[in-house]
Amino acid sequence: MITLEQCQQWDAADILAPLKNQFELPQEVIYLDGNSLGAKPKKAAEKALAVINQQWGTDLINSWNKAGWWDLPVRLGNKIGKLIGANDNETVVTDTTSLNLFKVLASAIGIQKQKDNHRKVIIAERDSFPTDLYMIEGFMAMINQGYELKLIDQPTTLPDIVTDDTAVIVLSHVNYRTGYLHDMAAVNQLAHKHGALVIWDLCHSIGAVPIDLNGSDSDFAIGCTYKYLNGGPGAPAMLWAHSQYQTAFNQPLSGWWGHAKPFDMAVNYTPAGNVRRFLCGTQPIVSMNLIECGIDIFLQTDMQALRKKSLHLTDLLIQLIEQECSGFDLTLITPREHHHRGSHVSIRHPHGYEIVQALIARGVIGDYREPEVIRLGVTPLYLSSVDIWQAVQHLKEVLQTQQWAQPQFQTRRQVT
Amino acid sequence: MITLEQCQQWDAADILAPLKNQFELPQEVIYLDGNSLGAKPKKAAEKALAVINQQWGTDLINSWNKAGWWDLPVRLGNKIGKLIGANDNETVVTDTTSLNLFKVLASAIGIQKQKDNHRKVIIAERDSFPTDLYMIEGFMAMINQGYELKLIDQPTTLPDIVTDDTAVIVLSHVNYRTGYLHDMAAVNQLAHKHGALVIWDLCHSIGAVPIDLNGSDSDFAIGCTYKYLNGGPGAPAMLWAHSQYQTAFNQPLSGWWGHAKPFDMAVNYTPAGNVRRFLCGTQPIVSMNLIECGIDIFLQTDMQALRKKSLHLTDLLIQLIEQECSGFDLTLITPREHHHRGSHVSIRHPHGYEIVQALIARGVIGDYREPEVIRLGVTPLYLSSVDIWQAVQHLKEVLQTQQWAQPQFQTRRQVT
Repeated sequence: MITLEQCQQWDAADILAPLKNQFELPQEVIYLDGNSLGAKPKKAAEKALAVINQQWGTDLINSWNKAGWWDLPVRLGNKIGKLIGANDNETVVTDTTSLNLFKVLASAIGIQKQKDNHRKVIIAERDSFPTDLYMIEGFMAMINQGYELKLIDQPTTLPDIVTDDTAVIVLSHVNYRTGYLHDMAAVNQLAHKHGALVIWDLCHSIGAVPIDLNGSDSDFAIGCTYKYLNGGPGAPAMLWAHSQYQTAFNQPLSGWWGHAKPFDMAVNYTPAGNVRRFLCGTQPIVSMNLIECGIDIFLQTDMQALRKKSLHLTDLLIQLIEQECSGFDLTLITPREHHHRGSHVSIRHPHGYEIVQALIARGVIGDYREPEVIRLGVTPLYLSSVDIWQAVQHLKEVLQTQQWAQPQFQTRRQVT
Repeated sequence: MITLEQCQQWDAADILAPLKNQFELPQEVIYLDGNSLGAKPKKAAEKALAVINQQWGTDLINSWNKAGWWDLPVRLGNKIGKLIGANDNETVVTDTTSLNLFKVLASAIGIQKQKDNHRKVIIAERDSFPTDLYMIEGFMAMINQGYELKLIDQPTTLPDIVTDDTAVIVLSHVNYRTGYLHDMAAVNQLAHKHGALVIWDLCHSIGAVPIDLNGSDSDFAIGCTYKYLNGGPGAPAMLWAHSQYQTAFNQPLSGWWGHAKPFDMAVNYTPAGNVRRFLCGTQPIVSMNLIECGIDIFLQTDMQALRKKSLHLTDLLIQLIEQECSGFDLTLITPREHHHRGSHVSIRHPHGYEIVQALIARGVIGDYREPEVIRLGVTPLYLSSVDIWQAVQHLKEVLQTQQWAQPQFQTRRQVT
C-alpha cells in the first residue's frame, strides 16, 4: 500500500522540487496537461515586455541585429540541441511541426531519389498524431510519383514491414495517445540496414525523455516547443537534421530565411550550406523569444535526472490508480515497461470524456483523446508525488460518486 | 516653394493626426520604415500580458475555447478583410507570406490542371521581393512537371507576355523597392481574358493603399501583417482566396488546423469546406494576438482617408527632395503618377547605403535596398507633414556636408 505519507517523504527528498518555483500555475490546480500546453515560466511576461517595449518599440528594425532576431532560430536551436544529443548548428526553431515534417520528408525522399529511384514506400503509424499523416498525404499527392503510404497498427510490427523498398519511416518517438516510447537506436539501425531513412516526431518526447539523436544515428527529427518545453501556446517548432543531410538536398519550402545570402536579394535561390536551409519565411519574434524561458529551466538540470523523476511519477500514478480505483472499468494503455514509456499515462474508460470533464471541474487538468482515452501528462519539472496522490483521489471520487454522469460533463464542443 | 509653416498648417488641418497617439515611437525619431516593421501600438504590451498571464498562465488549455485561440486565424482574417474588400470568412491569418504563397500557388496550379493541362508558364517579376521567386522555384522543382518561370523586367510589359499558355501570374501589388503600384483590376482582367489566375502579394500594399479584392475580381492574395498593419515583428501573414477557390483544390500543406474535423483524429485528411483549408499547423498565439492591436487602429478610420494623406505625404516628400536636395545625384525611382504609387518613396544615390546609415544616426530611420536605393516608408497613421519636412532637412545636411563619407557609415553587415 502506498500512502500519502510515503508521497510526502518522496517529495521531501526530491532534488528537482525547487524548479517548480520557476513556473506560475493557478492555485488549487493539479496540471496534468503539460504534454498539451506546457505551464508558464514566471519569466515569460518579463521577456515579452522586453521584446515588445525595448526591441520592437524602441530599437525597431535595429533589433534584427542588436537583439539577434535574425539568429534566433539557430540560437534557440542550439539550446534545445543540448536536450536531444545534437551538436551546435544542427537544430533550428521555426514554423510548425507540420511544416517541418513536410520539409524533412521532402528532403529524405529527395535524398533517396538521388541514390536509387525504386523505393516508393513511406511507412508511418496509423496511431500517429494525425497531422503527420495529413502532411505525408499532402506531400504524396503533390509530387504524384507513385509513392505508397503503409500504415502499421502496432509499433512492434515494424520489423515485419520495413523492406528494401522502404524510402522513409515517419514515427512518433512517444505516441501522443498511448505514451508508447520507441527504441530510437534500434529503429534507426533496422531502417538503415534496409537503406531507409527515419524521421522522428519528438512532440511528446522532447523535454520528456532523454534523447540522443547523434548517438542513436538518427537522420531527421522535428518537434514541438510548447508541450514539455513550456515555450508558450503555439510557439514555433524545432527541426534537426543530421549534418550529412543538411546539404544533401534543397527542401522545397525555400523562402528567403533559408537563403545562403538573404540580403543580396538574388533572383535565384541558393540554400544556406547548413541547417538554416530549413528556414523559410520571417518568424514570429515575440512567440519565438518566449521559448527561451522554458529551455533555460531545463538547462539548470539534465534529462537523466528528469527521466528518473518522470518514471517515479508515472510508476506512482499507475500503481495508485490500481490501488485506489480498481473495479471501475479502467484499462491502462500505456506500456508498463520503462523502456517503452514516455512521460504520460493513458487509461481507457467507456466514459473517458465525461470523467476528464469532471476532473477538470475539480482542478485536475488532464485531457481526453479519442477514443475513450483519459490522458494524464506527468511533467517532472513542476509535479510532485503528492500531486499524483491527490489527482488519483479525485479520480476515485469521480468514479465512486459517478460524478461524471452529471449533465454538465456530457456536452462535447463541436468544431466545424 | 513649400515652407515649414505650410507643413505646420497641413498638420493642423489633418483629421488623422490624433491616431499617432495610439502608437509609441521613440522621441526624436522620424520613422520612415513602417513598411519594413510597423510601429508599436501602445496597447501591444497590455495585450501580450493578457495572453501570457491570463490565457496561458491561468486558463491554460481552456483558452483554446475560452479565449478563442482556435478561431483566431479567421477572426483576425475577418478584421483584415475589411481593409481589402474581402467578405467575412474569406481571409485567414497564419504562417508566413512565403508559405502562404506556396499554398495558393499549389492551389492555382491545381485548379488550372483540373481544367486543362497544357498551361505550363508561371509569370513573375524579376524585381519581386526575392522570397516570392524562391518559393515558386521550390514549388516547380518539387512537382517537376515541366513548368517554366518567365520573369518580366518592367511591369508595363505584362500585356506582351501573358498568353493562353500562362497558368499563373504572381505579382507584388506594390513593389518593395520602387513602390510601383499595379492596377489590380486591369491585371486581373488581362489574366482572366487569357484564362490565367493571379496571385497578389500585398506585403507592401495592405494597410497602405485601398484594396478591393472582390471588386477587382481577384483570385488569390497573400501578405504581411507586420509592415503597414503594425502587427509586431514577424507576426503571422494573411491569405485570401476567392470564395470559388476555397473548395476547388486541396493545398498540399495539409496540416490538422485545415482539417474539416480536426478533433475527430481521422487518419485521412478531409479539408475544411472553406478558407480554413489554407491553415496547417498550430499558430504562435502570442504573436498572433498582437496583430489585433494594429488592425483595431485602422478600423477607426478608413483606407480612403489614409490614402489621401499618404498621397499628400509622398507628394510632399518628392517635392521637398526636389526643392531642397537638387544637384546631389539623387534619382527618383518611385512613379510620380498617383495611380502607380504605393506608400513609400525610393531614390537612388551612388552612396545610398552610407546615406541611409547617416540618416539613421540622426534619428531618421529609413532603409536601404540593393542596389543604391534609399527607401523611405510613409505611413499616414503616425507621420505628419512636419516629419517629412524635417526628414528632408536631415537628408539635405547629410548630402551637403558629405556626412555619409564618415567611416562609421561604410561598414555593411555580412550575413552568412
